Amino acid sequence: MKKSLGARTLLYPTPVMLVGTYNHDRKPNLMTAAWGGICCSQPPCVAVSLRKATYSYACIVERKAFTVGIPSEDQIKTADYMGICSGRDVNKLVEAGLSVVGSDLVDAPYAAEIPLVLECRLLHTLEIGLHTQFVGEIMDVKADPAVLSQDGLPDILKLRPMLFDFGHSGYNGVGPYLGKAFSIGKK
Amino acid sequence: MKKSLGARTLLYPTPVMLVGTYNHDRKPNLMTAAWGGICCSQPPCVAVSLRKATYSYACIVERKAFTVGIPSEDQIKTADYMGICSGRDVNKLVEAGLSVVGSDLVDAPYAAEIPLVLECRLLHTLEIGLHTQFVGEIMDVKADPAVLSQDGLPDILKLRPMLFDFGHSGYNGVGPYLGKAFSIGKK
Repeated sequence: MKKSLGARTLLYPTPVMLVGTYNHDRKPNLMTAAWGGICCSQPPCVAVSLRKATYSYACIVERKAFTVGIPSEDQIKTADYMGICSGRDVNKLVEAGLSVVGSDLVDAPYAAEIPLVLECRLLHTLEIGLHTQFVGEIMDVKADPAVLSQDGLPDILKLRPMLFDFGHSGYNGVGPYLGKAFSIGKK
Repeated sequence: MKKSLGARTLLYPTPVMLVGTYNHDRKPNLMTAAWGGICCSQPPCVAVSLRKATYSYACIVERKAFTVGIPSEDQIKTADYMGICSGRDVNKLVEAGLSVVGSDLVDAPYAAEIPLVLECRLLHTLEIGLHTQFVGEIMDVKADPAVLSQDGLPDILKLRPMLFDFGHSGYNGVGPYLGKAFSIGKK
């Protein structure tokens, strides 16, 4: 018999995403977000939800672009820091010692040190409630060669992305390979 | 120097979700989906994206409700099976030997054996491209007591949700706890 936990945002896993934006003065910023995911295959799109109160919200509205960086687990302190401070108060990239790279495809920056980055142009804005969802078309994915496997695609065990556990406000790593999709379930 | 991988849906991690629906005859169905995530805190909402061609698409449009079940890694074969076959051709719950439970809150079913379930009523429908995004308000979360920690919230290492790796069409498990969010990044 299942137990009722109430109306809560308990989904597993949720990603740890660093949303990169420029403000009106082209000051770069990164903000940690866990509310989002892929939302369309063609065009390839990723959704991220932000509160209107965030510094990054107005940046996306103004620039109609953002990046989504996936930090590695050895960057846990940097990733967590980007969710604690606001770009209103500090230049978080400078404080964290990260190198800013301007996307050549969209009007948004990313950090050179973050191993995987999705460059997105704003396609849809959906007001839901406390959060506004921004749907970005993925114009390109850029990755450090060190996290790629021989076929040129990311190796999840080299990338080592983090999982955000909302219920207990924690981060977990990626575990072992379990099986092949569209295959292991065949009878 | 980063390498360009092209415009692809490469985000890490993405979840393995079992979307539960009724059709017009109240036939229950589960479909595996990885495109989605939490999209709002208040009201608590989860987004799942489905292609119009899927059997589940029309079910959600008609019933204005769905459930999102999170299978454990020991249910990998069941989870993968739900992404291989269509509810048009078979009763997947019967084939997989799962017990149907009708939600008492929304017009959708779930499987008793799946340890965590979000019961959702349809709030928004966003046409993006190949995929349509359904935003569901989470009316309740129900969980098996065996996956809960002492505080009554899910323990991710007891739940053991899976990660879908789109690039290599594989599943991974959850790795070890890495640190406390909104804490480990403080200077």
